[in-house]
Amino acid sequence: MKNIYLLGATGSIGEQTIEIIRANPQDFSLKGISGYNNFEKVKKIVDEFDLDVVCVKSELEAKLLKTDNENLTCFYGETGLVDLVGFHPKDEIVVMNALVGMVGLKPTIRALEMNRDVLLANKETLVVGGHLIQSILKKSKAKLYPIDSEHNALWQTLDGVDSETVNRLVITASGGAFRDKTREELKTVSLKDALKHPNWEMGKKITIDSATMMNKGFEIIEAAFLFDFDINRVDAIIHRESLIHSFVEFIDGSVIAQIADHDMRLPIHYAMYYPTRRKSIAKKLNLLELNNLHFEVLDEKRYPCLQYAKEAFHIGGSMRTVLNAANEVAVRLFIENKISFLDIEEIINQEMQKHQVIEFPSVEDIYQIDNEIKQRVYAEY
Amino acid sequence: MKNIYLLGATGSIGEQTIEIIRANPQDFSLKGISGYNNFEKVKKIVDEFDLDVVCVKSELEAKLLKTDNENLTCFYGETGLVDLVGFHPKDEIVVMNALVGMVGLKPTIRALEMNRDVLLANKETLVVGGHLIQSILKKSKAKLYPIDSEHNALWQTLDGVDSETVNRLVITASGGAFRDKTREELKTVSLKDALKHPNWEMGKKITIDSATMMNKGFEIIEAAFLFDFDINRVDAIIHRESLIHSFVEFIDGSVIAQIADHDMRLPIHYAMYYPTRRKSIAKKLNLLELNNLHFEVLDEKRYPCLQYAKEAFHIGGSMRTVLNAANEVAVRLFIENKISFLDIEEIINQEMQKHQVIEFPSVEDIYQIDNEIKQRVYAEY
Repeated sequence: MKNIYLLGATGSIGEQTIEIIRANPQDFSLKGISGYNNFEKVKKIVDEFDLDVVCVKSELEAKLLKTDNENLTCFYGETGLVDLVGFHPKDEIVVMNALVGMVGLKPTIRALEMNRDVLLANKETLVVGGHLIQSILKKSKAKLYPIDSEHNALWQTLDGVDSETVNRLVITASGGAFRDKTREELKTVSLKDALKHPNWEMGKKITIDSATMMNKGFEIIEAAFLFDFDINRVDAIIHRESLIHSFVEFIDGSVIAQIADHDMRLPIHYAMYYPTRRKSIAKKLNLLELNNLHFEVLDEKRYPCLQYAKEAFHIGGSMRTVLNAANEVAVRLFIENKISFLDIEEIINQEMQKHQVIEFPSVEDIYQIDNEIKQRVYAEY
Repeated sequence: MKNIYLLGATGSIGEQTIEIIRANPQDFSLKGISGYNNFEKVKKIVDEFDLDVVCVKSELEAKLLKTDNENLTCFYGETGLVDLVGFHPKDEIVVMNALVGMVGLKPTIRALEMNRDVLLANKETLVVGGHLIQSILKKSKAKLYPIDSEHNALWQTLDGVDSETVNRLVITASGGAFRDKTREELKTVSLKDALKHPNWEMGKKITIDSATMMNKGFEIIEAAFLFDFDINRVDAIIHRESLIHSFVEFIDGSVIAQIADHDMRLPIHYAMYYPTRRKSIAKKLNLLELNNLHFEVLDEKRYPCLQYAKEAFHIGGSMRTVLNAANEVAVRLFIENKISFLDIEEIINQEMQKHQVIEFPSVEDIYQIDNEIKQRVYAEY
């Protein structure tokens, strides 16, 4: 039986995690959740499961919950997330971090410091905090397991493999909303166009990140940290159907690929049951669906955000925070119709040019730089 | 440094094994070979490598070799193959069995009994002798490693995997020369048509076995023995391009595939270097070659030989010898233009119907049944 604290319980990954827990009550017990944007949903989860602890957005929500559930410990706000992760310190707890944004960094650090395994669906943890996480993992007994389908796919293939025998990691990219447009055509694309992901629906931010290919840039950074692998040997390839999630190219020329339907319940399930596999509720792939797959080279000139991501990784330190913050504020400006699509990459480029790098930024440095960039750039437009 | 005895040194797998040894003299030392059909080639190999022992076809050839190489031990004939495998019993030797036909069974058994690992490219060993091999492997310290690209692919994926987590093994089939013909059209196909393999050139026998799909039937039997896996969960799928060599479907819905160019030097190299991987001289795949792959259901009604193979496995014992012998003699008759293409499956069917099964046939039983069927059926036409 694994006890789970689920951060971001009301989002899409959170919901799917709960589906798996619900389907496997003999194996998992949900003991704590956080939910920020949907208090009604939080209350329903509290009613359904026998929770010890909850973190909500505001003090008022925490009080309301406490009134109806006197044995429940109720935290709130960003510090509440860290308190939740550290709750019942003697219990064996696995933390699923399905938070969106910078808010996910501190809880990951806290969990690993407490030797609690983290199933990670929060991108910012590694993009901005990869250096901190790597350093903590060296001292911690805990492990960090990726939920993102590409990294989960790499993990499935790399588990137990000597990394010296690997030549290259290749993750696949759907290509995003603008995969068929030229650079010239990108000058005039609209927000509405950018939000049409060809394969599935996601939040606005990540859909835009798919269109700029920054999402893949982040994923390449994450892969380099997760597998402690030279980023120059982590590549992406456009694969429109998104059925092959990753390739591991070995030095002998053999390629091992992980293939599955795009149902996020599979990577979540894999991480939750690791190191074994069990029957899952995820949609199964019929091998005949592999007819006529498509693969194209991912051209960094066509998608400069990929280049910026690799550059930020090479420069290292606080430059990855700049990459993430500049991208986030630029995407927000684009969503608010204040800038054009190609301005996103221009803003990232400018901010990276300006920045004075801190080599090994602390959590506080990271939050400060992040805030400074977001506020300043937002005010400029 | 691994010392190698190479059986079938003058055939295609033998030649490619020698290429790998030649390219990696720091890792492999060729110590013994057998060669039946090309004495000139045998002499060249003897001149190039510092061999201890050789097995040739005839006593005369053995004497000729001995005259020029006085320190070389020279065996000949079928018993010579077994003597070769057992030579220098205290040395650590890996045996590559690249023999074609029934002659491959006894040397495999001898090697495993002597705790010598066998890299197996000989189909008959497992098709007719699988029960013997499984029983020997339980007592032996030696391992049996598959060279055939499909089984090698499965091995790469299954290594270290708990078989309880596997739902199904799927090997791919090019479909053979007649993949686009209906059953009706098969009635009148010619030998010339049957010998046109769509993807590569091989010997006549195996090219016909590809066209009847008996080759895939044999491979399904081999996979069941090699991985000790329920044959009802070993399937084949038509994949025209032969770039994906196998799929392992896990119970959670994840599929792991091994992908590579069709260069046999890769599976040979993998088996030779196992448990590690090294750079190989095999042709590398460009992932863009995966564009527009094709997959089709392999219909057992369209290819009855597949059914016969599974039936022979289910009945077990000597029935697999009947399957193999009847197929071999029928293919020979077809190659000699004495029967039609569809007569091949009819002869197999008839011989299987007639046979009185021996549950756990000895090597002697196997050779006797094999001989009896081949002689009798050949004489009938």
